[in-house]
Amino acid sequence: MVSQRSGHPCHVTPPTAPSTALLTDHYELTMLQAALAAGTAERRSVFELFPRRLPEGRRYGVVAGVGRALDAIEAFRFDETVLSVLEDVVDEPTREWLAAYRFSGDVWGYPEGETYFPHSPLLVVESTFAEAVLLETVLLSIYNHDSAIASAASRMTMVSCERPCLEMGSRRTHEEAAVAAARAAYVAGFAGTSNLAARQRYGVPTSGTSAHSFTLLHDTEADAFRAQVASLGEGTTLLVDTYDIAEAVRVGVEVAGPGLGAVRLDSGDLGWLAQQVRDQLDSLGATGTRIIVTSDLDEYAIAALAAAPVDGYGVGTQLVTGSGHPTSGFVYKLVAREGEGGAMVPVAKKSADKVSYGGRKYALRRRGPAGTAEAEVVGTGRVPENDGDDRELLVPLVRAGEVVGREPLDVARERHLRSRAELPVAAQQMSRGEPVIPTIRLD
Amino acid sequence: MVSQRSGHPCHVTPPTAPSTALLTDHYELTMLQAALAAGTAERRSVFELFPRRLPEGRRYGVVAGVGRALDAIEAFRFDETVLSVLEDVVDEPTREWLAAYRFSGDVWGYPEGETYFPHSPLLVVESTFAEAVLLETVLLSIYNHDSAIASAASRMTMVSCERPCLEMGSRRTHEEAAVAAARAAYVAGFAGTSNLAARQRYGVPTSGTSAHSFTLLHDTEADAFRAQVASLGEGTTLLVDTYDIAEAVRVGVEVAGPGLGAVRLDSGDLGWLAQQVRDQLDSLGATGTRIIVTSDLDEYAIAALAAAPVDGYGVGTQLVTGSGHPTSGFVYKLVAREGEGGAMVPVAKKSADKVSYGGRKYALRRRGPAGTAEAEVVGTGRVPENDGDDRELLVPLVRAGEVVGREPLDVARERHLRSRAELPVAAQQMSRGEPVIPTIRLD
Repeated sequence: MVSQRSGHPCHVTPPTAPSTALLTDHYELTMLQAALAAGTAERRSVFELFPRRLPEGRRYGVVAGVGRALDAIEAFRFDETVLSVLEDVVDEPTREWLAAYRFSGDVWGYPEGETYFPHSPLLVVESTFAEAVLLETVLLSIYNHDSAIASAASRMTMVSCERPCLEMGSRRTHEEAAVAAARAAYVAGFAGTSNLAARQRYGVPTSGTSAHSFTLLHDTEADAFRAQVASLGEGTTLLVDTYDIAEAVRVGVEVAGPGLGAVRLDSGDLGWLAQQVRDQLDSLGATGTRIIVTSDLDEYAIAALAAAPVDGYGVGTQLVTGSGHPTSGFVYKLVAREGEGGAMVPVAKKSADKVSYGGRKYALRRRGPAGTAEAEVVGTGRVPENDGDDRELLVPLVRAGEVVGREPLDVARERHLRSRAELPVAAQQMSRGEPVIPTIRLD
Repeated sequence: MVSQRSGHPCHVTPPTAPSTALLTDHYELTMLQAALAAGTAERRSVFELFPRRLPEGRRYGVVAGVGRALDAIEAFRFDETVLSVLEDVVDEPTREWLAAYRFSGDVWGYPEGETYFPHSPLLVVESTFAEAVLLETVLLSIYNHDSAIASAASRMTMVSCERPCLEMGSRRTHEEAAVAAARAAYVAGFAGTSNLAARQRYGVPTSGTSAHSFTLLHDTEADAFRAQVASLGEGTTLLVDTYDIAEAVRVGVEVAGPGLGAVRLDSGDLGWLAQQVRDQLDSLGATGTRIIVTSDLDEYAIAALAAAPVDGYGVGTQLVTGSGHPTSGFVYKLVAREGEGGAMVPVAKKSADKVSYGGRKYALRRRGPAGTAEAEVVGTGRVPENDGDDRELLVPLVRAGEVVGREPLDVARERHLRSRAELPVAAQQMSRGEPVIPTIRLD
């Protein structure tokens, strides 16, 4: 018999690593060309990746994509194939410079799974302007996507009352975004995914048994259930809403016996149905058979099912689309660069509607004596005296071009649970509100 | 000097084609295993990919992703690396079957760029159950994503009054979704993209010049403009809102001369600013200098700028997130399969809240004598007599496993313009409404 739900974190295959260098906006290359010609390309520069605000109504955000971003930095190389694409984009000296490109700078960042707030400096990239400006698009793409998914996923796992949440949204998003979404959801506490590439690349546990098409393929529902149980074992999950649910539950237990693993409901009024099915299963002696629900769930629907006899949630569309916020709104801005005399100069765009602060940032999570988070402290200059309750948030990710911040995905997953548990209890409110802790700027 | 905006459709590099076989949900493999064991896996089956409805308020949808889906079908192979991932997912006989997998069936579909309506059968996949069920997730991922982007993009190009729309949203979505989004936007009439990988893989024209960081890198705005114009030519686009817009425009024309290509505004009240900048440019003799605007645009903002002296729109977040509808809601359902006697049997799930119709469909765009679309006719059985005004919508895409429906992207782009022009004028309303033509079911 084949296990229906198992990961194999020891067998993780590294992702194939084609160049990421063209996952880039045209203007980064033209800026490079102009800066090289002007002699300003090598100026020491600090870029920061940060949110100006949380998505509207959200209480906190979750950082995800860190590991993927480190992979992307390593694979950011301009080989001949890549350079041939750039023949009509930038001039020959620029292409020559690119041929030797290898990021040689330093990167600090919030570690994966950490929570964040407005103006949290999620990444600090220090290098030459030329080296750092080229990473803008690919870093933003990864962080904006993965953190949007993790931020939605965290709200779902927070209200699921320890019941497992399973990621099943691959079909509702771009096929590669789906793999990253499964990974990000796992960081934020999901138990697993349906996505097999996420199993391959990241060791995320996968699960799944059957769809309506499997029932419809067979001449009767009983035929379908017999075929499934014969092949996948009595511990399988039978989908019971193709025709009549009560009849399907009856047939399912008849075919599999009272040891039937689970039944899945994919339509209708899930709370009411779950109660009906629970009563029926119990009356048939299948008291251990679990009930999994999977129809258009989001964090609100999950919370509303808290009192229903549900044993697990399969979440699709609303997870992979960030539950109303498919992107995180992170930006990547130059905050300091070498001046004519060699000293670093803080810089920022002047704008009424898009607030940025110049200068390289530190970040602390200020905590009260009981360990509860009280503020996000973001400042420039010296890190303030720490009485031991505050946590420094930036960790080294890349040192002189070498990735030093890689870690197993389960470490990020555990970090997320700790970081979330530290937030004030208002973080658990599903209603729209302000960030659950304020961001304090110190200069 | 280097061209700042140019595609090179003759130099298109084919995308590298790693296997797509694991961009798949776990349950497709377990269904396969159970069906193989039960002897039902080889039953002739017809799956259809279709929308039950349009995204709320939308008048029409746009099919995109067809070419990418054909690539994905061809690359759907289970090599040793892939099979090793499946060791704990399915049994040995199933893995052996998979090792020989190659889709050998037929696929018909709406060609890329075509408009669609509720229940349009966008793809009809006919093969054995085993072969067709495995494609469910990857086909849905591609169609759901790419069509969501194209559907949003089409509304933007429709209201842009022939002014070019440029796709600039890569940073706000997953890095690979970004490439597909650039492609889909191009199908729906966008003039180009910032995304260099879309240039590489699909020949989409790219453009871009500079960001705020380039200005901030230099000691003065004038230094930055001089560096840019020296390297990229007077035809370049200067970003003029880093400090003071009027001053930047003055300096920009001073540096580049009245032949300055364009200025870009990325913040503030764009309509009002565009008028100020136009007046200033004209007063400086830069009457040919264009004004490009790029701050958080969507179709409503573009429509609202119709009367402003704007020459082009750069669209980011709202494009790559489908302007409120990041996924299309397509499903992939078994609609017919071989019965015990060999005849095809229509099948459908019984469900009050998720309507599906059994049987293999045809689809016609019914048109009035003036050529205006009047209805989407979707039926089973014989295609009705056609007086010449109706268009058949399904074309062959794969025949006996061979891709026959590949076409240049510009063909899809032209098709979209024709198909959209054929819709009733109400399709141009930005307000929420019903599908602009009804779907008529004939059985």
